[in-house]
Amino acid sequence: MLEPAADAEKTLAAIDIGTNSIHMVVVHIQPRLASYTIVAREKQMVRLGEYCQKTGWLKPEAMVRALDALRHCKAFAEGLGAQEMIAVATSAVREAPNGPEFLLQIQRVVGLKVDLISGEEEARRIYLGVLSAIEFDNRTHAVIDIGGGSTELILGDGREPRYLASVKAGAVRLSEQFVQSDPISGRDYGRLRNQVRNLIEPAVDKLLALGPFERLVGTSGTIMTLAEIDARRGGSFPTSLQGYELTLASLEQIAAQLRELDLEARRRLPGVSERRADIIVAGATILLEAMQMLGVGSLTVCEAALREGLIVDWMIGRGLIADRLRYQGSVRERSVLQLADKFNLDTTHAEQVTRLSLSLFDQSRGRLHRWSDADRELLWAAAMLHNCGHFINHSSHHKHSYYLIRHGGMLGFTEEEIEVIANVARYHRKSTPKSKHREFQRLVKEHKRLVRQMSVFLRLASALDRRHKGAVRGVRLTFAPQEVELFVQPHDPADPCEMELWNAEFKKAEFEQEFGRTLAIALEPTAAETLAVLGTKAETQPDAVRVPQGSWVS
Amino acid sequence: MLEPAADAEKTLAAIDIGTNSIHMVVVHIQPRLASYTIVAREKQMVRLGEYCQKTGWLKPEAMVRALDALRHCKAFAEGLGAQEMIAVATSAVREAPNGPEFLLQIQRVVGLKVDLISGEEEARRIYLGVLSAIEFDNRTHAVIDIGGGSTELILGDGREPRYLASVKAGAVRLSEQFVQSDPISGRDYGRLRNQVRNLIEPAVDKLLALGPFERLVGTSGTIMTLAEIDARRGGSFPTSLQGYELTLASLEQIAAQLRELDLEARRRLPGVSERRADIIVAGATILLEAMQMLGVGSLTVCEAALREGLIVDWMIGRGLIADRLRYQGSVRERSVLQLADKFNLDTTHAEQVTRLSLSLFDQSRGRLHRWSDADRELLWAAAMLHNCGHFINHSSHHKHSYYLIRHGGMLGFTEEEIEVIANVARYHRKSTPKSKHREFQRLVKEHKRLVRQMSVFLRLASALDRRHKGAVRGVRLTFAPQEVELFVQPHDPADPCEMELWNAEFKKAEFEQEFGRTLAIALEPTAAETLAVLGTKAETQPDAVRVPQGSWVS
Repeated sequence: MLEPAADAEKTLAAIDIGTNSIHMVVVHIQPRLASYTIVAREKQMVRLGEYCQKTGWLKPEAMVRALDALRHCKAFAEGLGAQEMIAVATSAVREAPNGPEFLLQIQRVVGLKVDLISGEEEARRIYLGVLSAIEFDNRTHAVIDIGGGSTELILGDGREPRYLASVKAGAVRLSEQFVQSDPISGRDYGRLRNQVRNLIEPAVDKLLALGPFERLVGTSGTIMTLAEIDARRGGSFPTSLQGYELTLASLEQIAAQLRELDLEARRRLPGVSERRADIIVAGATILLEAMQMLGVGSLTVCEAALREGLIVDWMIGRGLIADRLRYQGSVRERSVLQLADKFNLDTTHAEQVTRLSLSLFDQSRGRLHRWSDADRELLWAAAMLHNCGHFINHSSHHKHSYYLIRHGGMLGFTEEEIEVIANVARYHRKSTPKSKHREFQRLVKEHKRLVRQMSVFLRLASALDRRHKGAVRGVRLTFAPQEVELFVQPHDPADPCEMELWNAEFKKAEFEQEFGRTLAIALEPTAAETLAVLGTKAETQPDAVRVPQGSWVS
Repeated sequence: MLEPAADAEKTLAAIDIGTNSIHMVVVHIQPRLASYTIVAREKQMVRLGEYCQKTGWLKPEAMVRALDALRHCKAFAEGLGAQEMIAVATSAVREAPNGPEFLLQIQRVVGLKVDLISGEEEARRIYLGVLSAIEFDNRTHAVIDIGGGSTELILGDGREPRYLASVKAGAVRLSEQFVQSDPISGRDYGRLRNQVRNLIEPAVDKLLALGPFERLVGTSGTIMTLAEIDARRGGSFPTSLQGYELTLASLEQIAAQLRELDLEARRRLPGVSERRADIIVAGATILLEAMQMLGVGSLTVCEAALREGLIVDWMIGRGLIADRLRYQGSVRERSVLQLADKFNLDTTHAEQVTRLSLSLFDQSRGRLHRWSDADRELLWAAAMLHNCGHFINHSSHHKHSYYLIRHGGMLGFTEEEIEVIANVARYHRKSTPKSKHREFQRLVKEHKRLVRQMSVFLRLASALDRRHKGAVRGVRLTFAPQEVELFVQPHDPADPCEMELWNAEFKKAEFEQEFGRTLAIALEPTAAETLAVLGTKAETQPDAVRVPQGSWVS
């Protein structure tokens, strides 16, 4: 049977490097069904979040355990025929000062590229994972995921999420800080409970302020363990916990029991694994406090979470979207537009600059550069947001743009992608990228080049809308071995775009330095002028009009 | 005649360290009249803005000239009996990387404390200076001041300014960049004019968008020189240029003439001083372009500008406000509240934290610290704005608060004061001030101590409104040689403020470290509890109720 390649089944592995464990799922993607089937799951409790208490750094032993686990995951996935691997790191790596360096080490030693994602981005992908396993039916659901380093809280009705939060309440983190007695002393428990409330209350309040929800869905190892304990207490041995209902009353009993048992006794409790026994008291406390604050009497367990969300996100990125996930397709776009709105951007100018930037990108693709569509999207975001720093102050606004983009909590992008977008925006004026600039330093080599080249396009485009009047209809590039010519086409034939041309002249040096060709900038000659150069007249010899080289973009 | 000291006449010197010149005015302040009389003016063209073209640093020769001039100014002012000196530095020092260091050098060598002010703050004080010399009569005026490094544009009707802008179009700066031929070539002139338009157009557009104005007022040496040339051309030798009307038509003629003359001929032109001749072409171009863009046919010269504004600002700070400047009294307060509004602050919480912070400050004053009322105002601003970083992101919001305060363009404060406010806000949670933090490093030693101590108060106050519910009515401090006790008074006697007390406990270490005394935090005992401790009953022996030590603040 002949099948187009794009439609072929694909095997994909998704890895989540968490604070307590490293999880992997391997799936078969069925593009035509817009769905996936899980082929294998793998989980190793490497406890990466055992930081050095003093410095907050990841400990060498923990990093070695993680590297081993990832090597194993990779070999396992390859053995299953995985053609692609997606890996993300969350709280433990996010919080540790040596986290980014550790990710470089993984790439070097294991050959696996790992993206660092923010807490909110983690929440968004958990939401996608849950949506792939539970039908929301357009009704509002709350979701809670209790990890080793953070807890995610989500509100949504199946379409775009209405609330995403990540708070630093994690079962590993809180156990290290507050569980210093065995069984836990009354004083320690009081402190633990206070700290849990402290951490989750603001997020719970905001979620509740957004209106009522129909049910609470729970994901993560901690919650599945609590559900498993509950099932065993009731004498059942469920083969799957998907859809299991855990009531608040049961949870209260379980939590009370866990508090009274010492570590050894907790290990022997049916449903509790060896490496979960030490952190389950903190985990149960988080869930208990959250359910009480949320005012719910029970919770529905969902087995799909972050890893499945990675798969769904990957599918969305390739246009393989199941119908009920159709609202999730444009998260990046929405996220950029939301920031633009929050920071009061002059969107007419932003869109004009974006259009011209992308036109420069597209026309020079394959001639001056070979960046991908994904890179083009980063240029799009940077161009849209390049002026957002104005919201803080006109003076040095390019640096404020960097700051707002970098810290504004955009969704749908990895931290590294956000760093690229913020840098391109930052370099839309004034100094070009310098190795002494801290923000630029942070980038890997390839991304430094990307930032340099994209910012050249953005600088030119920004100059070409200097009057914020959309005076330029389009640009046309022609390429010679040593030279590039840029023809500027005014909207109004009577407007010579003097100011735009004059400003663009100042951006030539950066272009020439970056692409190693001279740049000439001129107003596009009118048809009449072209004819005059050719020594003929339009009326008599229309055929003699030379078709300009290069592509026209309007 | 007996006169209270506060009402005594005072001699004050105000110095403005500009890009082209250093100016001083010495005035007698008449507190009872809410006015001042100018005793002396002094001006030296030190051309501080002759930067190194490559690095942007102030040149050693220029710094030596400035130090000499300031030494001279100081001796002169002291000779006239000046009891106080106010000095500010503007564009040249603002732009140079070694500017702050140069200010420290002035303090060391000349013994003069110089405040660095932002461009908008400069515009605000120019406005105050103009208001002290021209009656606006509640009608809207535009003001332009053309300096060596920047041009200020202002719109206002005598009350608070409606628009303040500072753009980097200065007569010295642009002369260095574009006037490379003598007389200026057509090409250079075209480039100069384009650059002037480029720089001032956005500000002019915004000003015009705010509505019509009645007349344009011009200040600065450049504008007075152009007015002087015009007067001499008309054959008059005015003793004062205050109120002189310069028409656009005359200015066009003068500017055209200046363009055609070489440096030597410009020097000989009646009205042009030796050290003005080289930069007057650029200066005239800035004014010409500005008047054309603003669409005005003439300009009224005002001799009072930044220096006079420094005097007025000083008087306002001491409550010596002339009636027609009454609207200008609360610029700092308004500026802080404007930022709070822009960044969507929860003002109820902010006000509660501010109230508690100031209560801690006031009660411990003279016991734990001796900071002034001016320092108290910085704590007020920091407490009001401490949470503004939430607008960017909850995560690390204390750092975002620093950024927004530091770069948000607050008026009425010097750059150093803004740095203190931003730092205090930044340290309201998480890490305490560390010498490795770049933002903290920048402060002078005394301000480092100020930030450390104010942030201790702010941390405690913030913890005491942990639930954002205003649960705490007040705090009471008692002092012993080794110990401080903090009693928390709930609004509702039935609310034990557990969460607040628990959170405040975590802030004790910083307090103890900073003030060298232990801190005990407790709920204020109720009258009944106090009686119980005393072994008596309120009903029978009301006299036995012990009056608590310390002051009560609600």
